[in-house]
Amino acid sequence: MDKEFTYIGKRVPRVDSLSRVTGEAVFAADLKLPRMLVGKVKRSHVAHARIVRVDTSKAERLRGVKAVVTGRDTAGVKWGVFRYTQDMEFLPRDKVRYFGEEIAAVAAVDEDTALEALELIEVELEELPAVFTPLDAMASEGPWIHDEYPNNVNVHVEINVGDVEKGFEESYLVREDTFTAAEDDYFMGEPFAVVARFDDGGNLEMWTPNAGPHMKAKPLSNALRMPLNKVRVRKIAIGGAFGGRSEISPADYICALLARKSARPVKLIYTREENTVNVRMGHALITTIKTGVDREGRVLARDITCYMDGGAYSSTGPIATSVPFLCMEQAYRMENVRYNGYRIFTNKPVRGMIRMHGRSFACGVDLQLDRLGEELGIDPVTMRLRNARKAGETTPTGSVVSSCGLTECIEKAAEKIEWRKKYGNLPPWRGIGIGINSVQTGFPLGIRGGSQAFIKFNEDGGVTLNSGVVDNGQGNDQMLVQVVAEELGLPLEDVNLITADTELTANDPGSYSMVSTFAGGNAARLAAIDAREKLFRIAAEALEANPADLVLKDRKIFVAGSPDRFLPLTKVVRMGLIQGRPVSGEGHFAPKVDHRREWVSNPHGQLSEAFSFGATVAEVEVDPDTGQVRVLEVAAAQDCGFAINPMVVEGQFEGSVAMGGQGGMLTEYHFWDGGRCMNPTQLEYKVPLAADMPRIHPIIVESNDPGGPYGAKEAGMSIAMSAAQAYASAIADAIGVTITDFPMTPDKILEAIEKRRQEERK
Amino acid sequence: MDKEFTYIGKRVPRVDSLSRVTGEAVFAADLKLPRMLVGKVKRSHVAHARIVRVDTSKAERLRGVKAVVTGRDTAGVKWGVFRYTQDMEFLPRDKVRYFGEEIAAVAAVDEDTALEALELIEVELEELPAVFTPLDAMASEGPWIHDEYPNNVNVHVEINVGDVEKGFEESYLVREDTFTAAEDDYFMGEPFAVVARFDDGGNLEMWTPNAGPHMKAKPLSNALRMPLNKVRVRKIAIGGAFGGRSEISPADYICALLARKSARPVKLIYTREENTVNVRMGHALITTIKTGVDREGRVLARDITCYMDGGAYSSTGPIATSVPFLCMEQAYRMENVRYNGYRIFTNKPVRGMIRMHGRSFACGVDLQLDRLGEELGIDPVTMRLRNARKAGETTPTGSVVSSCGLTECIEKAAEKIEWRKKYGNLPPWRGIGIGINSVQTGFPLGIRGGSQAFIKFNEDGGVTLNSGVVDNGQGNDQMLVQVVAEELGLPLEDVNLITADTELTANDPGSYSMVSTFAGGNAARLAAIDAREKLFRIAAEALEANPADLVLKDRKIFVAGSPDRFLPLTKVVRMGLIQGRPVSGEGHFAPKVDHRREWVSNPHGQLSEAFSFGATVAEVEVDPDTGQVRVLEVAAAQDCGFAINPMVVEGQFEGSVAMGGQGGMLTEYHFWDGGRCMNPTQLEYKVPLAADMPRIHPIIVESNDPGGPYGAKEAGMSIAMSAAQAYASAIADAIGVTITDFPMTPDKILEAIEKRRQEERK
Repeated sequence: MDKEFTYIGKRVPRVDSLSRVTGEAVFAADLKLPRMLVGKVKRSHVAHARIVRVDTSKAERLRGVKAVVTGRDTAGVKWGVFRYTQDMEFLPRDKVRYFGEEIAAVAAVDEDTALEALELIEVELEELPAVFTPLDAMASEGPWIHDEYPNNVNVHVEINVGDVEKGFEESYLVREDTFTAAEDDYFMGEPFAVVARFDDGGNLEMWTPNAGPHMKAKPLSNALRMPLNKVRVRKIAIGGAFGGRSEISPADYICALLARKSARPVKLIYTREENTVNVRMGHALITTIKTGVDREGRVLARDITCYMDGGAYSSTGPIATSVPFLCMEQAYRMENVRYNGYRIFTNKPVRGMIRMHGRSFACGVDLQLDRLGEELGIDPVTMRLRNARKAGETTPTGSVVSSCGLTECIEKAAEKIEWRKKYGNLPPWRGIGIGINSVQTGFPLGIRGGSQAFIKFNEDGGVTLNSGVVDNGQGNDQMLVQVVAEELGLPLEDVNLITADTELTANDPGSYSMVSTFAGGNAARLAAIDAREKLFRIAAEALEANPADLVLKDRKIFVAGSPDRFLPLTKVVRMGLIQGRPVSGEGHFAPKVDHRREWVSNPHGQLSEAFSFGATVAEVEVDPDTGQVRVLEVAAAQDCGFAINPMVVEGQFEGSVAMGGQGGMLTEYHFWDGGRCMNPTQLEYKVPLAADMPRIHPIIVESNDPGGPYGAKEAGMSIAMSAAQAYASAIADAIGVTITDFPMTPDKILEAIEKRRQEERK
Repeated sequence: MDKEFTYIGKRVPRVDSLSRVTGEAVFAADLKLPRMLVGKVKRSHVAHARIVRVDTSKAERLRGVKAVVTGRDTAGVKWGVFRYTQDMEFLPRDKVRYFGEEIAAVAAVDEDTALEALELIEVELEELPAVFTPLDAMASEGPWIHDEYPNNVNVHVEINVGDVEKGFEESYLVREDTFTAAEDDYFMGEPFAVVARFDDGGNLEMWTPNAGPHMKAKPLSNALRMPLNKVRVRKIAIGGAFGGRSEISPADYICALLARKSARPVKLIYTREENTVNVRMGHALITTIKTGVDREGRVLARDITCYMDGGAYSSTGPIATSVPFLCMEQAYRMENVRYNGYRIFTNKPVRGMIRMHGRSFACGVDLQLDRLGEELGIDPVTMRLRNARKAGETTPTGSVVSSCGLTECIEKAAEKIEWRKKYGNLPPWRGIGIGINSVQTGFPLGIRGGSQAFIKFNEDGGVTLNSGVVDNGQGNDQMLVQVVAEELGLPLEDVNLITADTELTANDPGSYSMVSTFAGGNAARLAAIDAREKLFRIAAEALEANPADLVLKDRKIFVAGSPDRFLPLTKVVRMGLIQGRPVSGEGHFAPKVDHRREWVSNPHGQLSEAFSFGATVAEVEVDPDTGQVRVLEVAAAQDCGFAINPMVVEGQFEGSVAMGGQGGMLTEYHFWDGGRCMNPTQLEYKVPLAADMPRIHPIIVESNDPGGPYGAKEAGMSIAMSAAQAYASAIADAIGVTITDFPMTPDKILEAIEKRRQEERK
């Protein structure tokens, strides 16, 4: 690979940094439109009930109320990511299925009026028996949460590769453990907000934080019974997504409905409580893992059964049912493996995608491997090196791994924290642990047509890139600018962006499943190359040279090897304009994956074109009197293929340690009163702040994937997952007990220490 | 030509009609942005003066004033359409050159404060001798209005083809007349308004009625010393242009300057007075025409000298100096012709482009031909038929005429009004007259790169067209929609438009010089064809057919001749998405014209790829007691090549009769006190209303130009010009005297009748 890059691979500040730190960035909640109304949602105060009566007449008569909507105002369209999981009405007509579900909504001239109107809406509910855990839900005799799903089983994923029983028989050591975990959650910096307006032509325009506007526009057009052409979902500054903004939200629909009924723009801002309850969560899991290894610790067979608490609707959950397993099979080499994953409906908030899939799954796999190693006298790092995936291998479900720097990640992270020196030699209550994981760079589901980009040259030689890619905090805008600047030899400030607008930009799979750099970056690169070729054809004629001999650098087009034979880029652009040959370019890219209808319940084939790999090593100190964990140092190594902007990639690693390790394994969890979340706000739910964070060593490993732009693939999520695993592994090392319920909060740690002491006393 | 069109050539309502009649359309004056300020301009109250002192300190101290700007705040950049006509500072520093010129501007929290602030700006001017007519200006001994232009001569166009003197010698009859006319003007429905804002990245965003955003962005970026990439001029509803919005306006620049200085959005709305004085006008002309004809009335030689009042700056005027002549030489065949056109600076408002170039020029040519015919005993229609241009001929300055339906226009218009029956046989004070003219479809100057369009297919089979074309009232949006719908077999409502935005859309020459259908329509058509080819490649594989055998109609792709072998369009689009072959298209088109630097002062070569031709016949009745003219009937026939939407084309013809004939020849003119316009508002300046209009017979003649989209070329302007000529010709016929000063207002008509009576008495 040619490493002579000018902008790629460089640490340059992000194009959106200034607007974020100055507060100039406009989020949906900041948007002001003339005559705009305030929208508010009336929600269920029970977890499961039949809707008997919703009387909005008093609310409608309140002065300043411009529209009230209920299920009666809808076409009754059901939404689901897949055709066979369409089970959610955005405004249910017959039943509510979780505490906080939408029942009605109002649009009024101000917030006070809207809130007063909510109080005036009379809702009569006939409560139904509710279930709050997967096991209770499966055991329930009904009524089922959805009539179509007996025993509340939403999805059953079944994978069976090789001969698992024979593998166990041949194993030197077999161990089975069960791990549990609360929901993972995401506290976006920006609570959800949406603004909708209709123009006189009946066209809907919507601004909303989202991971993919095209993914929002389609279900909106279905639910509103409008042609897709008339639904425009637009880019706006976004304060985080983490998987929680991957799909349409009922609020998007409700806001549009209110705007249509009132014939005025409507803004709907979620409270922090709503943002927790009504913007998806990760799944709570119960995972039983049975692993057989040979004398050297190599995994011969693994059998996993996982029950996932899906909450009240399908959402993106059916995909999430296999993701933890797939991540595991990518990271760990094994020939015989069985997986039964069940996603179960409960009367709790809806669970879907999250940046950190399956805390109890991944942590369980790694903690169990630590225990197996312990019995064999093999340290955790060696256990992982012996089982780590290598490039060129095929996963059990059939994906060829094109590039893999996992071994290098493990070695570098371990070396950074001085693993060999420290492991087994730390003072009491100190521990060191490791976790490894692997993440897909784009899923086959939902990626329709990949990403397409257009470039046009402006008269002064600057360019505008048109791309569907969303930046929801990860730096995609910066990525696009660097790619285009690199290919066109332009300073970064000469690249303008138009992104993420269903009307203006072409299709893009959306910034989820870690695909934006791979698909969107490749599309932008190809568009730039296409435009460059047009430039070269024009310049070649004027320079009397072969287009193949030209190079573009520093806004000049040179004949290679002849520094005096050049034309300024601006001149070539103008020559093109005068000659009627405007310079523009088009590029599109779709990852090479298998598309199969049965993928959700039985994934097999090429799942993703590229896979990233991460290893995190953490050193912790536990206070045996308080159960508090102090994290001393973390080394986070990831094979991201190639770092287009190392500064941004390292920022991703750091954020991943915060979310996956510091928050995910130590402090972040919800507690419940039946179906009601009792800690929905930051007052009771502890998200780590900068001051809480340990010292982090981000380590970038570059395997240069053959398919990625400049070799790049996913960056960050492999760390979010392996950080949780490393924290868990280190705490177990520190206290000498393996806690099997996550996160590892002080009460559980104290309890574990006490239990160990009691056992030692025996 | 295949006449089997579905949408093209059909009378369908315009896409923008609803928003216009309901008032939903948002014009620049309607736009509201948070924290937006009101801008107002301090103007000169004298016609010519040195600026001695501008003291803004009191205005700046007024509460609510957020910015005050003068020439001191500018970079002193001079603007002109051509490099050698850069003579205008948007906020002059040293001199003012006409009554009403910009001196300073303020931005304040409301209009009252802004107006109060204007009063507080102290301006000290040292008055200079001023000149108000071209002849005075040329005779003046200085100081010249611009030091660089001695004797105030801005441009001298000199054309000399064939042997004019010999032509006169060989003529049977030679006649010389001098015609004069006041300025033509345009009363746009929407007075000019502009909104400008800067974002935190220093990017300028501007909404302003204009004929070509790319033509505004470039000079703005020069004057503001900003990269073009950071200047975005955006589409907004536009209430007419007529040539008056062809270039940057000082107000655009001033509004941006105020927004930059105040760091807040600024809106600047012109009063009706400002819209008259500061938004260009047509030129006032003094034209001497000498024509020699043979016994059959064929023109053997013509010599024209024209003095044009250019006002205080060059603006687009240098181009306008040759346009009346070029229109004439296109319409009338002649071998020997000489033209001397002088554009002279005066201390009056700036004159530029107008839909009706050279009232006294074109009307003079036709009135003189009527008189020559009278002496020869040949009626005006026959005189025109004998001299009318034919397809395949070359104009004196060297343009090949690719298509020409002029003879058919003359014949059809004459027949419609029963010319043969009526001419010479009308009752007293009734008259019938004819005018013919020809207009370019696109000028070589300013058309840089022609037009470029992009199309993308949305998931539901609808498309979005991205084109730089502006619709400023003539129906360009509708034209684009019909073209794309036709090529893609889509209902009109499935075509969305993104147009006229320097950031979003590619280069376009702008909707002036009558080029938008020819260039923009062709580009849109080519983009649609490009997208269709991609669709066909995808469909051909699935249908196992040859792409060349496919046809696209009614949202279905058929194998030609096999009505059962088809795929729904939406399905093919989705197949493309799934296969990673997104369907999009690109098209660009630049008219084939000669680009020569010396074009302005010496036009020669291919001026335009296509020319349109029009003939108007009018019948009038003059009240000899009041001088009032009642127009009984008008037949307006134009060869527009092909009418993409006959309803829209006919609307253009009707508007042209209103502007050129009814307003232009009867009621519209300005009167002056020195350099001050005394009738700048609709109270004193009579624009015809619907109730004033005669019965109009629009007649579409289709010559199917080989270069135009479906054969289309310019539509409307040939009528605006020939309507004035027809009205003048008919009045002369009615009163038996040829008035040589235009417009023909009642006072002039009464005076002419009186003069005739006196002569008859002699």
